[in-house]
Amino acid sequence: MLNLNFHPAGRHFLGIPGPSPVPDRLLRAMSYPTIDHRGPEFGALGRQVLQGLAAVFRTQHPVVVYPSSGTGAWEAALVNTLSPGDQVLMYETGHFASLWHRMALRLGLQPEFLGLPGAQGWRHGVDAGRIADRLRADTGHAIKAVCVVHNETSTGVTSDIPAVRRAIDAAGHPALLMVDTISSLACVDYRHDEWGVDVTVSGSQKGLMLPPGISFNALSPKALAASKSARLPRSYWGWDEILESNKTGYWPYTPNTNLLYALSEALQMLQAEGLPNVFARHARLGEACRAAVRAWGLEIQCADPKLYSPVLTGVVMPEGVDADRVRDLIWRRFNLSLGTGLGKVKGRMFRIGHLGDCNDLSLLAAVGGCEMGLKLAGVRVRESGTAAAMEHLAATGSELRAG
Amino acid sequence: MLNLNFHPAGRHFLGIPGPSPVPDRLLRAMSYPTIDHRGPEFGALGRQVLQGLAAVFRTQHPVVVYPSSGTGAWEAALVNTLSPGDQVLMYETGHFASLWHRMALRLGLQPEFLGLPGAQGWRHGVDAGRIADRLRADTGHAIKAVCVVHNETSTGVTSDIPAVRRAIDAAGHPALLMVDTISSLACVDYRHDEWGVDVTVSGSQKGLMLPPGISFNALSPKALAASKSARLPRSYWGWDEILESNKTGYWPYTPNTNLLYALSEALQMLQAEGLPNVFARHARLGEACRAAVRAWGLEIQCADPKLYSPVLTGVVMPEGVDADRVRDLIWRRFNLSLGTGLGKVKGRMFRIGHLGDCNDLSLLAAVGGCEMGLKLAGVRVRESGTAAAMEHLAATGSELRAG
Amino acid sequence: MLNLNFHPAGRHFLGIPGPSPVPDRLLRAMSYPTIDHRGPEFGALGRQVLQGLAAVFRTQHPVVVYPSSGTGAWEAALVNTLSPGDQVLMYETGHFASLWHRMALRLGLQPEFLGLPGAQGWRHGVDAGRIADRLRADTGHAIKAVCVVHNETSTGVTSDIPAVRRAIDAAGHPALLMVDTISSLACVDYRHDEWGVDVTVSGSQKGLMLPPGISFNALSPKALAASKSARLPRSYWGWDEILESNKTGYWPYTPNTNLLYALSEALQMLQAEGLPNVFARHARLGEACRAAVRAWGLEIQCADPKLYSPVLTGVVMPEGVDADRVRDLIWRRFNLSLGTGLGKVKGRMFRIGHLGDCNDLSLLAAVGGCEMGLKLAGVRVRESGTAAAMEHLAATGSELRAG
Amino acid sequence: MLNLNFHPAGRHFLGIPGPSPVPDRLLRAMSYPTIDHRGPEFGALGRQVLQGLAAVFRTQHPVVVYPSSGTGAWEAALVNTLSPGDQVLMYETGHFASLWHRMALRLGLQPEFLGLPGAQGWRHGVDAGRIADRLRADTGHAIKAVCVVHNETSTGVTSDIPAVRRAIDAAGHPALLMVDTISSLACVDYRHDEWGVDVTVSGSQKGLMLPPGISFNALSPKALAASKSARLPRSYWGWDEILESNKTGYWPYTPNTNLLYALSEALQMLQAEGLPNVFARHARLGEACRAAVRAWGLEIQCADPKLYSPVLTGVVMPEGVDADRVRDLIWRRFNLSLGTGLGKVKGRMFRIGHLGDCNDLSLLAAVGGCEMGLKLAGVRVRESGTAAAMEHLAATGSELRAG
Repeated sequence: MLNLNFHPAGRHFLGIPGPSPVPDRLLRAMSYPTIDHRGPEFGALGRQVLQGLAAVFRTQHPVVVYPSSGTGAWEAALVNTLSPGDQVLMYETGHFASLWHRMALRLGLQPEFLGLPGAQGWRHGVDAGRIADRLRADTGHAIKAVCVVHNETSTGVTSDIPAVRRAIDAAGHPALLMVDTISSLACVDYRHDEWGVDVTVSGSQKGLMLPPGISFNALSPKALAASKSARLPRSYWGWDEILESNKTGYWPYTPNTNLLYALSEALQMLQAEGLPNVFARHARLGEACRAAVRAWGLEIQCADPKLYSPVLTGVVMPEGVDADRVRDLIWRRFNLSLGTGLGKVKGRMFRIGHLGDCNDLSLLAAVGGCEMGLKLAGVRVRESGTAAAMEHLAATGSELRAG
Repeated sequence: MLNLNFHPAGRHFLGIPGPSPVPDRLLRAMSYPTIDHRGPEFGALGRQVLQGLAAVFRTQHPVVVYPSSGTGAWEAALVNTLSPGDQVLMYETGHFASLWHRMALRLGLQPEFLGLPGAQGWRHGVDAGRIADRLRADTGHAIKAVCVVHNETSTGVTSDIPAVRRAIDAAGHPALLMVDTISSLACVDYRHDEWGVDVTVSGSQKGLMLPPGISFNALSPKALAASKSARLPRSYWGWDEILESNKTGYWPYTPNTNLLYALSEALQMLQAEGLPNVFARHARLGEACRAAVRAWGLEIQCADPKLYSPVLTGVVMPEGVDADRVRDLIWRRFNLSLGTGLGKVKGRMFRIGHLGDCNDLSLLAAVGGCEMGLKLAGVRVRESGTAAAMEHLAATGSELRAG
Repeated sequence: MLNLNFHPAGRHFLGIPGPSPVPDRLLRAMSYPTIDHRGPEFGALGRQVLQGLAAVFRTQHPVVVYPSSGTGAWEAALVNTLSPGDQVLMYETGHFASLWHRMALRLGLQPEFLGLPGAQGWRHGVDAGRIADRLRADTGHAIKAVCVVHNETSTGVTSDIPAVRRAIDAAGHPALLMVDTISSLACVDYRHDEWGVDVTVSGSQKGLMLPPGISFNALSPKALAASKSARLPRSYWGWDEILESNKTGYWPYTPNTNLLYALSEALQMLQAEGLPNVFARHARLGEACRAAVRAWGLEIQCADPKLYSPVLTGVVMPEGVDADRVRDLIWRRFNLSLGTGLGKVKGRMFRIGHLGDCNDLSLLAAVGGCEMGLKLAGVRVRESGTAAAMEHLAATGSELRAG
Repeated sequence: MLNLNFHPAGRHFLGIPGPSPVPDRLLRAMSYPTIDHRGPEFGALGRQVLQGLAAVFRTQHPVVVYPSSGTGAWEAALVNTLSPGDQVLMYETGHFASLWHRMALRLGLQPEFLGLPGAQGWRHGVDAGRIADRLRADTGHAIKAVCVVHNETSTGVTSDIPAVRRAIDAAGHPALLMVDTISSLACVDYRHDEWGVDVTVSGSQKGLMLPPGISFNALSPKALAASKSARLPRSYWGWDEILESNKTGYWPYTPNTNLLYALSEALQMLQAEGLPNVFARHARLGEACRAAVRAWGLEIQCADPKLYSPVLTGVVMPEGVDADRVRDLIWRRFNLSLGTGLGKVKGRMFRIGHLGDCNDLSLLAAVGGCEMGLKLAGVRVRESGTAAAMEHLAATGSELRAG
């Protein structure tokens, strides 16, 4: 029988780019006793959570909450707004963009997948110019939606969403704009309303610091209008009944009560820290991590410095080194989990997560564990990345507590 | 700001028919630190959970686990096996059967809804004879599936599933048999393979004692075969990719890690108690609860004693009494939650749950709270139901610990 | 290997008169991460706890907190104020008064033990008149302290402390008054300053709802003065160094950090409910419990109705019935713990606790479990105590939540 | 109102030399529901814990468990074995040895305090030769006990206990040997029986990984014999009644139930890892930490390399640098707690704990946080201590999990 309670001495360092480390405070909130999901206390909880979410998505419009993985929220975005055979324009930035593309195919849509050949696109962000060009060519407006990933978790590239919005507007095209923010929400600045996004897809287990199991669709009035005539079949994902129930703080089917407790707590934590501070913390830890990779003399998976992700850093291995062997050695030796290379970059790189409930010393532990592991695996590193990270951390940042 | 940590003195008594009280042991398991869902420990956890689930469903075939409410597992059963416009035969036993019927409509199927007129059917179980008749009339085999609810949570009626199987067989009809066991699994004897069920739908928050957020489809080879040609669009719910990943204990998208910890623990608890003991415990508590209702001189919602539910008891109010007013008074005065009347019986009855992590004294507390509340609400009761329940509990049952 | 995580299905009902059921909220607070007991956060915690305790003891003077059982606080009261061979006047109200008496002997004091012969005194409270008489006879003021137990946990008798104070004053005697409130504090009205108590001894695991492990001495200026010249050796229990450290919120040796978290939370819970409401709740549950015992036709251990304890009720068994056999049967059969008879009443009675985090339905469960157990053990009961308890609970009390 | 639930983003790094970081697994065990301390389950728990403790102390003789801080166990050792005015020989190795000396004075003993002048002794261990000399001079055997600290938590010096034993034996002196292992037990090899110790004093919050609140006396037959005639008054600390109750797994007064749960779990964790592995892990982390201090060019408080503590490292600041200012800056900036300098070395040094539930990356985080803080505080460091620590960690150690 597996002993789930077993771990080697000392705390495990969870350095994957999500699920991110769940703060003890959220674990405690998750353990509040389950209450009647039709009782008055629940309604108050529901209303509070929905209001708090709107502030995080930066929207005045509804946010729909699903008891599901983030993958479910992708599906919800598509089936609520589109009809069988609809064309959608997607952009290959990495593994998760590819999975969303495959989902569109499975649901009977006609997705078109822009991007660079081979694995080239996996080192870059969305090229808004190509989207503009493609939409201009679509004079018949057959394309119903543009779908892009804000922060590509498989590569560590954060695309420029306002640029995509401007591209659509420049083309004068009516397509809906759908954005996956599963790994960027509450880590990177994001503005659903101001940036003119129609459906924002997100999840619980990254910047919101929860365990996986809750996902989101933030809506625009245009998306809501589209849902009235969209003909893909939908029931579980249907916005209509959820929005109706949400008016009083309830859900049409049994919600994920205990995760909603944790969500309520997480929203309070984010509000207390202040979103701009949260974003600055992520940016600073990301830069410290990249300073380490540069010092090691290794390549960062993201080839465009303007698009470096504050959420995770992809570390490319030298030719001939199996990234998963390094990763596995680090896990077995230093009790540190790193993200595997996915899809086209499997074995070529690993990923260091620096998101959610992280701080200077948790980053330092991750970087130090990587550095020792790289050496033990025989990967030649130029100089100490740990020293470089410490230099950045010491030179920036401020006191966490009053003096 | 809502204070989720607040409750009146003493423990809240959760007497709704699910979510059932989550044992502290599961809450503790839920708080194990989130691990890498692609790491080796996770695979061991996944394999263990899938194996344990098979034993609870009594099946040799795969059980698919979804990060979703039970409602999602209804949808999964339909979209994996059926095609647009397919006819399905459903049976109105109450609110949840009605919701499943409505879902079938929304998904573009043609559900036919058997049952008694008005709210009559809400006091009875599935009439297998009528199913047999209807299937015999369907000589062209246009009906692709028969969908029934094992334990109707809105009424407290447990239908006879083997009888439904025999009805289909007697009609020589190839329709798939799909059964909702959301509130019966691990409370009432259920045998997926032996009873010839093709898709068993279930959820986490009843007999499995977890918070809501995980749901299940147990499959038959016939269901799997049907899924190869079914044409309803599906991606999140698609069995194929999940089954492929499950071979090594993983999932194709981020699973509900912390709920899987709790599920693993729950499966160990059920195995330690022994399923036959679990069923006997539920049956005995159910009988004690009904003894109370009879003593009060109130009607039990289930009109067929052979189909009394061991999971919950629906208590019908006398004419002119608003059941929700009584329920609300009990909640405010005695810190006890009861299930509201749903749909056609709204305001006419309330429901006492006696499922999951319950025992003699928790039942007694629920019954006693109801009795005091009924009196305070001015409902005339014939004699003490609490005394009747105690009599049954004392006369039956055995020692929980060695002497 | 003992499996501490195992229990029969459903929640255990802890009906002993302390340790009382620890609210989940306190268990969660206990799991906050241990912090540096010399750091700034700790000082803030210490100051908050000390301030909150003063409000519960109703004192303007210091409260000393010990990492120890309540027994340690007894010793602290004696060794800080007395010298070898000092005479102290104690009163035999039951087992705990007797243990305190034995402790005084062991510490080299000369305790005199007033009380009725045999087990008679175990059914009554402190007779203040006898104390007055004895003090008047002590014209040389050889008696240095009068020590009484406020609520005798072994019997369920709550003595009249102001009467003892008046007795001492009436005798014009300078003896210190020391009172054990281990099981009464935060259950029964108690006023350290107003009642002129010199040392109040208390503990964590009863009305304060914590697990055992913290204990208290509340002091008067007279007690502090006495400690300057007292010559019993003391170090761990010494008030002087603790009071000095407490000024800034710290302790001279490592304090019980995680229990202090729980204490801080408990003090907030008591403040939120309001001490008068807490006392009224205990009084009402106590009366409901005694209504049950009367209905059963059994004797209440406390023979003086004015001194019935709101904390626990001692239930005397008929001649020839072994109370521990009944208690054990109830534990094995109904998952309910009751207090054993101690010392002189071993086997003659058992004790039902109704203290701390209790409410109507937890009391009802305890009473119902006893009633079933009594019958199964062959103890003839006159009529249903559960019915009597329910009658009292329904007739009194108010709504816990806004309508 | 203090918000105990608040902390800056990310986990706090507790780098003080105890209380050490409490593993989540122990926090979960602490939250098991409190049970009847006189019931059968409790007896099984008590017996299990007492047996497990004997294995950790390496003794066949009884281990007494107190609900108290470690300071209480010091007192227990003295009052159980000695009489008023008895001479005891103590050795000044640092702050904690000095506190024990002061306690002996307060209890009315005549302690003689060997050691070097000023703060010199705080950099060295016990000089067994001086003990031998002093005992030889005590031809009348007026000295009743020799009391030494195994691991001096204030300095990071681990004295040689077998050498002390040999010194006593060489002098042919009958004095009892009492050893404080509060911060060494379960961190450093220790053998109560084999080393001929009469009373071993210990506590819960260091190597045993619990929160503070439980302490211990391991006994020898000679100590037990001494307790029969010792005349210091004692009650709470009295071994006799505790040993009597312990025979069946109980305690004479209310034990610290929830901490005993955690203790049971901790003993299982230690047994699973294996004490030799636990000691080797501590030794290795200690050496890595000292490698860092050496690289910084700073002095280690312990001046005798043979006596370096595997539990903590004292880091001496250059002249003119206030260690507490550095420590405070590190706490405010990097969310890392370090131990303050105590007593004679206040402001001169700080202490890094590497004990209990620690591992490579938690040590690395502590060392890295110190290094950044030293630089920010303007302390000139020669070279990177973090690099030196990593070099040691990578060069030693093995895989924590199977490949």
